[in-house]
Amino acid sequence: MNRKDILGIRDLSKDELIEILDTAKEMKRIIMGEKYSEILKGKTVVTIFFEPSTRTRLSFEMAVKYLGAHFGNIEISSSSIVKGESLIDTVRTVEMMKADVIVIRHNMSGTPHFVAKYLNASVINAGDGINEHPTQALLDMMTIREKKLHFEGLKVAIIGDIIHSRVARSNLWGLKKLGAEVRFAGPSTLLSEDFNKLGAKVYYNVDEAIKDADVVMGLRIQLERQKSGLFPSIDEYAKYFGINSERMKLAKPDAILMHPGPVNRNVELTSEIANAGYSVIEKQVTNGVAVRMALLKLLCERSE
Amino acid sequence: MNRKDILGIRDLSKDELIEILDTAKEMKRIIMGEKYSEILKGKTVVTIFFEPSTRTRLSFEMAVKYLGAHFGNIEISSSSIVKGESLIDTVRTVEMMKADVIVIRHNMSGTPHFVAKYLNASVINAGDGINEHPTQALLDMMTIREKKLHFEGLKVAIIGDIIHSRVARSNLWGLKKLGAEVRFAGPSTLLSEDFNKLGAKVYYNVDEAIKDADVVMGLRIQLERQKSGLFPSIDEYAKYFGINSERMKLAKPDAILMHPGPVNRNVELTSEIANAGYSVIEKQVTNGVAVRMALLKLLCERSE
Amino acid sequence: MNRKDILGIRDLSKDELIEILDTAKEMKRIIMGEKYSEILKGKTVVTIFFEPSTRTRLSFEMAVKYLGAHFGNIEISSSSIVKGESLIDTVRTVEMMKADVIVIRHNMSGTPHFVAKYLNASVINAGDGINEHPTQALLDMMTIREKKLHFEGLKVAIIGDIIHSRVARSNLWGLKKLGAEVRFAGPSTLLSEDFNKLGAKVYYNVDEAIKDADVVMGLRIQLERQKSGLFPSIDEYAKYFGINSERMKLAKPDAILMHPGPVNRNVELTSEIANAGYSVIEKQVTNGVAVRMALLKLLCERSE
Repeated sequence: MNRKDILGIRDLSKDELIEILDTAKEMKRIIMGEKYSEILKGKTVVTIFFEPSTRTRLSFEMAVKYLGAHFGNIEISSSSIVKGESLIDTVRTVEMMKADVIVIRHNMSGTPHFVAKYLNASVINAGDGINEHPTQALLDMMTIREKKLHFEGLKVAIIGDIIHSRVARSNLWGLKKLGAEVRFAGPSTLLSEDFNKLGAKVYYNVDEAIKDADVVMGLRIQLERQKSGLFPSIDEYAKYFGINSERMKLAKPDAILMHPGPVNRNVELTSEIANAGYSVIEKQVTNGVAVRMALLKLLCERSE
Repeated sequence: MNRKDILGIRDLSKDELIEILDTAKEMKRIIMGEKYSEILKGKTVVTIFFEPSTRTRLSFEMAVKYLGAHFGNIEISSSSIVKGESLIDTVRTVEMMKADVIVIRHNMSGTPHFVAKYLNASVINAGDGINEHPTQALLDMMTIREKKLHFEGLKVAIIGDIIHSRVARSNLWGLKKLGAEVRFAGPSTLLSEDFNKLGAKVYYNVDEAIKDADVVMGLRIQLERQKSGLFPSIDEYAKYFGINSERMKLAKPDAILMHPGPVNRNVELTSEIANAGYSVIEKQVTNGVAVRMALLKLLCERSE
Repeated sequence: MNRKDILGIRDLSKDELIEILDTAKEMKRIIMGEKYSEILKGKTVVTIFFEPSTRTRLSFEMAVKYLGAHFGNIEISSSSIVKGESLIDTVRTVEMMKADVIVIRHNMSGTPHFVAKYLNASVINAGDGINEHPTQALLDMMTIREKKLHFEGLKVAIIGDIIHSRVARSNLWGLKKLGAEVRFAGPSTLLSEDFNKLGAKVYYNVDEAIKDADVVMGLRIQLERQKSGLFPSIDEYAKYFGINSERMKLAKPDAILMHPGPVNRNVELTSEIANAGYSVIEKQVTNGVAVRMALLKLLCERSE
């Protein structure tokens, strides 16, 4: 791979996706084994989060440490941004401390793309507004590949608040490239016919979306992102769109259940099925560390 | 030792306590020497604090680093819990990033015991509500042992807000097992006769509790934990229950003075005696790193 | 160098300044090269920030990591200070966890000097009130030296809110010792004739201060430190005191432009000149890591 930055799945070719997934598989051996390497010894990775995050920050932190690199983190609350520092100046400052890779999460779509132009350091998008969340989609693809071995012809039903979901968008770009059929389902206020134009199949009935699916993926209901009044109540959502064991029976017998976490139990999924044998939610977390290691390795190798 | 978790002193046998203290003594050599080892190279320890903490978090962090392991930390303020993630899902997520040991502090008694059941990773209780604070008690025991060489027949007077103190409870369990006499003293609103049933001697007069003691331990007045109205004023507390040089004269001539820190100077102890020759308060801090290293080492060795 | 602490530039001799700058030059080779060393393997450095900071904390963190030492950080928001712990007890506690160097920033002038007396560990002042910010001045001196090769006879114009600036004071002490002429310029409400007594030339007209200068340094307008009413409006400030390309023409043809960051663009400096060829603002950031590595190395070597 010969890229400076990982800004979105949309930009990546099928070959690049496969290269990342192959590398992640290799990295997973480190995670499941001695959890120590010197692959990125002397490299510096700094995460800059303008939105709060536990999972993604800790996942990157562990990925960096398992590769033997230096890790640093800035959160908005303790940041100079409060002093009026410009975004570009902030990331340039971090680069001048000799960061090789800067991981950035921001609530404005396009921020990582914008800052990447001003940096020689590599940029990884850890989620930008409602645009993309490429490392989440990569870990989803890695998890699907582990279970299904291929993507060609797979039916992937993604259910929930599609319209505000960067996870849904990133998965759409990636899974289409890899040959899967992507189905989006959710309440009409959280979904749009426009996704047809991007190659998704749009369903307002969850049962229809799940029917014969190989993969059923619930999305987190992001209450903080919704405009009041547009959204069904939590109870209504759970009843009409929540995934439960009955609905899972509509999918293929060997279907798997996914969720990017954290799950609102008994809203997006019943608590029962979150822990069922077909749930791969926890595998996704481990694979998240693996794909982040893979991206760090590939970006740093390029710069050498 | 063949335990997955360290949840409380109550569960530990005398032999286990001695094994931990012996290991801590060995670990202290690293602390006082080169401060570097690879004993836990490739292991991952994550601290999860649902209550703010500087001392305990930094002490664990240094223990992890002196052993050459990977360290990560989550605090509630920057955590997904604010997004409604369940406690079990949070700790499982951390485990899936391949944490070998999860250190947890929570304001609800029993939380570490509850989560430990759902984890293959080891759990260390870094303080749960008013139940236990085992690493604090272990560092106290280590400090007493360094000075007194044994526990049999020692008189240990613990003074202050007993009723809300997880430190007092953990010390009671441990010191009794090791053969010491434990005396609890404090205002009647912060102490209960019920502690007699657990093997403590209960005093409402501090002078009587200190008389002939080998160890005098002040507890921090946790103003935030008290119900208003039940508690004496700070001035009254200092006058009737505060430890001072006059009161220390009632103890054995070679008695030592302890406090888990941070001290409210001139409340629990006069500033003068906090710095006196018989004060071992600062030794307790160093020993805190040593006992935490010991627990990490023993738990990780078992899992191999 | 035979010092326990780095509390201010005022205390350092010319020879010591040169030794630090020489060491920093050597450290910069690590930064620009493999970013890895074991020079301080087994040493422990803890930063304690009582004022928020991104840049300085991250710069120290990277300096520590590039030297192979253990790093820990405490911020006031997550600190025991909120529980009423005394300042001395806090730093002594950190020392007892075997910190070799404690880096402290505090909004009260003199705090690092005060705590240093109570510690065997080395103390580095990372900014105390309006008194000193020695590591900032050292990185400024390092940057000037890189560009000008010497200090003798250089004219350095420092412009802005001088009266509240610890950066201005530290640079004054250092640059005078090294043989440069220091000019202070700013609005009369943010500057005082008293600086004459300390060896600075005081100007209320920016153009005059910049005339024939070798170095032009803008200071950050610290809105949070000013008493309301005394200060010109932002627009007035930018018009009468802001540095722009016209004003830079008054300086020597090979003059350099500096700023401690973060820049309020189009206030202290126009955005245009912040990015101009004569701007060394980003070099200052890299040199910040280098001088901090140098101080850590020199202080730790002494203690051996």
